[in-house]
Amino acid sequence: MLGKYLENVRKKSPLIHNITNYVTVNDVANVLLACGASPIMADEPDDAVEITAICNGLNINIGTLNSRTIESMFKAGKKARELGHFLLLDPVGAGASKLRTDTAVNLMKEIKFDVIRGNASEIKTLVLGSGTTHGVDADKADAVSDENLSFMIDFVKGFAKNSGSIIALTGAVDLVADAEKCFVIRNGRPEMGRITGTGCQLSGIMTAFIAANPENKLEASASAVCLMGLAGEIAFKNLQSGEGNSTYRNKIIDTVYNMSGKILDEGAKYEVR
Amino acid sequence: MLGKYLENVRKKSPLIHNITNYVTVNDVANVLLACGASPIMADEPDDAVEITAICNGLNINIGTLNSRTIESMFKAGKKARELGHFLLLDPVGAGASKLRTDTAVNLMKEIKFDVIRGNASEIKTLVLGSGTTHGVDADKADAVSDENLSFMIDFVKGFAKNSGSIIALTGAVDLVADAEKCFVIRNGRPEMGRITGTGCQLSGIMTAFIAANPENKLEASASAVCLMGLAGEIAFKNLQSGEGNSTYRNKIIDTVYNMSGKILDEGAKYEVR
Amino acid sequence: MLGKYLENVRKKSPLIHNITNYVTVNDVANVLLACGASPIMADEPDDAVEITAICNGLNINIGTLNSRTIESMFKAGKKARELGHFLLLDPVGAGASKLRTDTAVNLMKEIKFDVIRGNASEIKTLVLGSGTTHGVDADKADAVSDENLSFMIDFVKGFAKNSGSIIALTGAVDLVADAEKCFVIRNGRPEMGRITGTGCQLSGIMTAFIAANPENKLEASASAVCLMGLAGEIAFKNLQSGEGNSTYRNKIIDTVYNMSGKILDEGAKYEVR
Repeated sequence: MLGKYLENVRKKSPLIHNITNYVTVNDVANVLLACGASPIMADEPDDAVEITAICNGLNINIGTLNSRTIESMFKAGKKARELGHFLLLDPVGAGASKLRTDTAVNLMKEIKFDVIRGNASEIKTLVLGSGTTHGVDADKADAVSDENLSFMIDFVKGFAKNSGSIIALTGAVDLVADAEKCFVIRNGRPEMGRITGTGCQLSGIMTAFIAANPENKLEASASAVCLMGLAGEIAFKNLQSGEGNSTYRNKIIDTVYNMSGKILDEGAKYEVR
Repeated sequence: MLGKYLENVRKKSPLIHNITNYVTVNDVANVLLACGASPIMADEPDDAVEITAICNGLNINIGTLNSRTIESMFKAGKKARELGHFLLLDPVGAGASKLRTDTAVNLMKEIKFDVIRGNASEIKTLVLGSGTTHGVDADKADAVSDENLSFMIDFVKGFAKNSGSIIALTGAVDLVADAEKCFVIRNGRPEMGRITGTGCQLSGIMTAFIAANPENKLEASASAVCLMGLAGEIAFKNLQSGEGNSTYRNKIIDTVYNMSGKILDEGAKYEVR
Repeated sequence: MLGKYLENVRKKSPLIHNITNYVTVNDVANVLLACGASPIMADEPDDAVEITAICNGLNINIGTLNSRTIESMFKAGKKARELGHFLLLDPVGAGASKLRTDTAVNLMKEIKFDVIRGNASEIKTLVLGSGTTHGVDADKADAVSDENLSFMIDFVKGFAKNSGSIIALTGAVDLVADAEKCFVIRNGRPEMGRITGTGCQLSGIMTAFIAANPENKLEASASAVCLMGLAGEIAFKNLQSGEGNSTYRNKIIDTVYNMSGKILDEGAKYEVR
C-alpha cells in the first residue's frame, strides 16, 4: 500500500533543494508544494552548498546545465551526501550531447545518488557511458513494452546493483527497481508527453518522497511514480471540451494537491517483479 | 481609501524593471500586466543599467542570485537611484545563506530602497545583519501574531527609521510601515503559501504602485499588499471542487486583472497604528 | 489555404532548439508541444552547438541575453546554418539597449535567418542599425495602421530584400513578407498584449512551421501568425466572467492544441499584397 508514503510527505514537509532547469522550474516548485513538501532553488556554487545544508533532499536536474550550475551540482551534491541527505539525479538529455552525458556520468561517479530517474534513452546512456538520444524525449526503440519487459526489468535491476542507486526508468510503462525488486507501474496517460516538464515534476516529487520515507526508499519512489501517473489519469478525465495541454498541466498539479493516500492506494496500478 | 492607488497604476502604466529569480519570473510579469503595469527583465550588468534607465521602477529580488546578477543588482540599483526611480528590495532567503544575507545587507548599505519587502525572518536578518532562516519561508517563531503585534509594529517602525525605507513585513498579518505610521493588514489566505511566488508577485506589484504614486508611497505600498491579499481571498472563494494550487495561482492573477479601485476599497482590511 | 502548414507540423513533429529568455520559456515549450512540435532548450555554448545539431530548427530570442548565452546564439546559429537548419531571430528589446541592438544586428550580419520576427520598433531598429524603443513593447508611433499600411508593406518588403530573410512585423496588424509578397494579417486580439510572451510563443511556433514546410516558408510563416492570432480570438470568446490574463494565457495554448487545419483555414483573415 503506497498511499502512506504520500501521507508522510504531507506530515513531514521535507525541504527540497532543486538545481534544475529554468524551463520547468516553476512547475517543479508548485508540484512540490502540492504534495506537501517545500521547494528551494539555488544554483550559484557557494550559495548552493549552504542552501543544501538546510534542506532534507537535493534534486539535481541537468536540463539547462551550464558551467556555473554544473559546479554547483557537484559541490552541493557532495555536501548533501556528506550530510546524509537524500539525492536524486535527473539526467535530462544524457545521450544528446557530450556535456550532458559527461556531466551525468561524472556526477554518478563522484556522488552516490539514492535515486536516478530518467527515460529509457537517458538510462541506457548512463549504463553505456555514452549515448544516442535524439533530444530530451526517449527514442521509440528504447521504450519498455510487454515484449521486452523481462529484459528491461533485468536491465534496471542490474544497473541498480552496479550503481547502488534506485533506478526509475519512466515511460509508457515505468520501472522502479533496486538490485532485488522491481515495481512495474502502469499509471499515466500518453498525453502527459504533450506537456513540458512532467518528468521534471516527478523528479522533484520523488526527492520529497525518499526524504520523507528514509526507511522505505524503493516503495516511496514507486509511490511517487504512481502518484504522478494517477494524477495524470484523473486530470485527463476532468478535461473539458476545448481544453488542452496548458490546462492539463494545471489540473495535474491540482490533482496532486488534492490527492489522498486512500485515492493513491485505490488508483495505483503496479506489480512487483 | 486605498483603491485610487491601483487606479493610478492602471492610468500611468509604469514600466518596471525586474531583476528577479527564474522560478517565479513569469508570474511576476503576468501579475504586473494584470495590475496595469508593464514588466521588463534584464540581468546582464551592462544591459541591466541601460534597461533600468528607460523604466520607472526597479524590483530587485535575490531569489536565485548569482555572481553575474548580483553585479547587475548593484549597478542597476545605483543607476535607478541616480535617476530618481523607485526601488524595491525583496531579500528572498536572507538568513538562509551568507551570500544571500551579505548581498541583501550590502544592497541596503549602498542603495537607498523606497521599500523593502520580506517575510519576518528575512526582515529580522536585515535588522541584525545576520540570520537564522531555514529556507525561503519564515520561521514560525518569527510570525506576527496578536500577542506580539505591538512589539512588531515598533520593530518595523524602528527599522524603517534606521533604513529610511518603507518596511513591508508580510505573513499572516502584514505590516507596512515608515518611521511614524504602520498599516496592519489582515487580507489574504493561508493557502497562498501553497503557491510558489505570491511574495515575488507582491514585490513586483508594490514597485509599480510606488512608481505610480510617488506622493503617497506608504499608502500605495499598503494598497498593493491589500490588493494581493484580497485577490487571494476572492480567488479562493472561486475555487471549485478538485482545484488546487496551480489553478489558485491562475485565479489570483485573474482577480488582480479584474480588480477595481472600488472592490479594493471595499475589501481592504487594515488599521493604521 | 494556410491550414495545411499546421497539419505538416503535426505530421513531421520537428524538434526545435530554443535559445530564449527565462521569462516565457515554459510557455514557448508548451505552445510548441501544442502545435505538434518538440522543444529543447540549451544555452551553454558547447552544449548549444551539439543540441542544435540534432534539431530541425533554431529559435533565437534575445529577451534575457547575457554574455554566455550570446556566445551560444552565435555558435549555435552558425552550426545550424551550416547544417541547413531553419533559423528564426526574435530581437526582443532591440532599440532599448546597446547590447540588445548590437547583438541582434551582429547576429543578422553573421548568420542568415530564414525569418526575423519582431514588433514595429524592433524591426525599425534592425533596419536603421540603432534604435529608439522604450521597453519590449512597440512604440505607438511605430504601429502599422490603415493610414501607413502601403508604406509599411514597402518597408518590410525592402527589408526582406536587403536581409534575404522573411520579415514578420507583428502588432495590431501583422505583416509577413519576403521581397515580393506581403501577407497582411488581421487576426488577434488587443488583450493578447496583457499576457507576457505571446510574441515569444509565436516565434517558437513560426520556427516549427518553417522547419516542417521548407518549400513554402513564407506561407508557413503567415500560417503561424494566423494560428496564434486566431487562437487568441477563440480563447478570448471562451473567457468566462472573472477570468483574466493568466487563464487567457492557458486558453490560448489550449486552443493551439485543439486547432485543426480546417479551423485555421476558416478563421485566417489575411490579404496578400
